[in-house]
Amino acid sequence: MRLRAAFQGELGAFSQVAARQLAGDDFIPVPMVSFEEVFVSVVNGKCHCAVIPIENTLHGSVHENYDHLLKYDLPIRGETFVRIVHNVIAPPGVKFTQIRRVYSHPVALNQCRRFFEENPQIEKTPFYDTAGSVKMVMEEGLTDAGAIASANAAEIYGAKILRKSIEDDRENFTRFFLLERPKRRSRGVVLQTKPQGSKRFKTTVVFTMRNLPGALFRSLSAFALRDINLTKIESRPLRGKPWEYLFYLDFIGHVEDPVCRNALNHLAELADMLRVLGCYPMGQ
Amino acid sequence: MRLRAAFQGELGAFSQVAARQLAGDDFIPVPMVSFEEVFVSVVNGKCHCAVIPIENTLHGSVHENYDHLLKYDLPIRGETFVRIVHNVIAPPGVKFTQIRRVYSHPVALNQCRRFFEENPQIEKTPFYDTAGSVKMVMEEGLTDAGAIASANAAEIYGAKILRKSIEDDRENFTRFFLLERPKRRSRGVVLQTKPQGSKRFKTTVVFTMRNLPGALFRSLSAFALRDINLTKIESRPLRGKPWEYLFYLDFIGHVEDPVCRNALNHLAELADMLRVLGCYPMGQ
Repeated sequence: MRLRAAFQGELGAFSQVAARQLAGDDFIPVPMVSFEEVFVSVVNGKCHCAVIPIENTLHGSVHENYDHLLKYDLPIRGETFVRIVHNVIAPPGVKFTQIRRVYSHPVALNQCRRFFEENPQIEKTPFYDTAGSVKMVMEEGLTDAGAIASANAAEIYGAKILRKSIEDDRENFTRFFLLERPKRRSRGVVLQTKPQGSKRFKTTVVFTMRNLPGALFRSLSAFALRDINLTKIESRPLRGKPWEYLFYLDFIGHVEDPVCRNALNHLAELADMLRVLGCYPMGQ
Repeated sequence: MRLRAAFQGELGAFSQVAARQLAGDDFIPVPMVSFEEVFVSVVNGKCHCAVIPIENTLHGSVHENYDHLLKYDLPIRGETFVRIVHNVIAPPGVKFTQIRRVYSHPVALNQCRRFFEENPQIEKTPFYDTAGSVKMVMEEGLTDAGAIASANAAEIYGAKILRKSIEDDRENFTRFFLLERPKRRSRGVVLQTKPQGSKRFKTTVVFTMRNLPGALFRSLSAFALRDINLTKIESRPLRGKPWEYLFYLDFIGHVEDPVCRNALNHLAELADMLRVLGCYPMGQ
C-alpha cells in the first residue's frame, strides 16, 4: 500500500519536494489548504504521515507549526533541508518579453526583489500559493503573465521555466519535519529503539519552567554540563499565563543514549512540563 | 511643539492606545501602512517617535519588528501593555439583529470564535485592519455589517459599540515599545543616564555567538551568575549564516547598574556581536 503524505499548499509546493526527500517517490501527495488540516489528517487517519516546514534561514521559524506540534502530539520521525530556488514559469509558447505580471506567494515575491528591480515592466502580483500560481496561469492560459515557483511545480503543471534561480539570496533553505502517528508510548515519551549503525540523531523537546531567575540557564545546564550540543531554541507564549513561555529545544543525540537520557531526567527535575516531540536521523 | 508618533494601522488601532499610554494625549498620531514605514519615518525625521507591538500573549512575538530593531537601530525608550478587548461596532442606528457580516483583521476574527459560534447568522469577513474596518463600515454607511475593533476606534469614527469584549480569551495582552531617534552614542551603546528615583528598568540586547556547544548556556551565565532576571529570549535567523541565530534578551536592570554593566562586559567577551537596543522604565 502506498503511503499518503499530507502537506500544505498545492501540488508542486516546496513541501512536496521535501516529502520526496523524506519518503521517496513511492507516496501519494495529499495537498491541504492549512497547516492545521495537515496535522488533523494524520490524527484522524486520513493520511499516514505529514511533511511540514519548521524554519527557514531567511524568515525564521514557522511558529504556527511549533504550536501544532504541541497540540497534536504527532512524533517527528525525520528532518530534511530544501534549498528554495525560485523560477519564473509560464505556459508553453509564452516568451519572457510578453510577461507583464508575475503571480506568487508574497514571501516568494519579496525574496526576488532584484529581479523586479531589473525588470520594471513586470508587476508583482500576490497570490495565495507559489505552486498554485503556476496552476492558475496554466488553467487560465494567460499569455502576458507568469508565476514564481519551484521547478517541480513547472513540471507538474506542464509549464516552462523562463528564468532560473531568480532569488536574491542563495542561502535560502527550509527545514522540514516528517510526522507520523504515534505507535506506542508511555506517558508522553515516545518509545523508539535506536537503530544500529553510525547514523547521527537529533531530538526535539518542549518544556516549561517556573518563572524564576535563572530558570532557563538551569534548564540548559542539563545539556551543557554533559557536552550535548543544542542546535535550536524557540520560545512560544504559554496560553493562560501571560509573559510565561514554552521552550522548544533541538539537540544532537538519541533519547536512548545514556548521556541524553540523563540530561532529560535532569531537565525533568527542573521543568514543570517536559515532552519529547521526536527523535530522528539528522537531515542532510 | 507636539510630538509626532508613528504607528502601524489606521487611527484607532491598538498601537494608538499604546501610544497614548506611553506618550500621553499631547501627541499627533501618524498612522502608517507597514511596520517598516514606521521605522523609516523616525529614521528620516518625519516623526519624533514610534510605537510598535513586540509580543502578544496569544500569538507570540512580532518577529518582523525584532528584525527592524536590529536594522534601524532606534533605541527603545519605553514599554507598555495593552489588554486587547474586541467589540462589535456598527454605524449609529444599526441594531445587532440587522448584522449579517462582521469585518476585521483575520487575527481579531480568530480571537472571537465563540462569538461566531453563538451567532451563526453572522459571517466573518477578513479585512486588512481592525480600526480600518470600523472606518470602512462608517464611510460606506453599511446597515447590515459591523466591525471588530477597539473602543477607541468606535469613538474616533463616531460608531457605536453593540457588543463589548467578545474575545475568547481575556488573557490577551500586547506589549508595545516606544522608539525614539538616538541622541548621542558611542560605538553602538546608547548612552543614557539613569534617572534618580525608585523606578525599575528593563534592558533589551541582541547578540550572536560562535556556533559552539554550550555557547548559549555560557552567554546566559553572564546574567544567571549575577542573579539578573531574564524576562524574554527570542531567536532569529542570522542572515548569510544558515542555521545560526541572533538572540534577543530582555533583563531586569539598568545598563548603568554595576551588576548589569559587569554582565554586559562578560557577555561581550563571549559574543561575536553585542548591541544594547534600549534601557527603559518597566511598563505597567
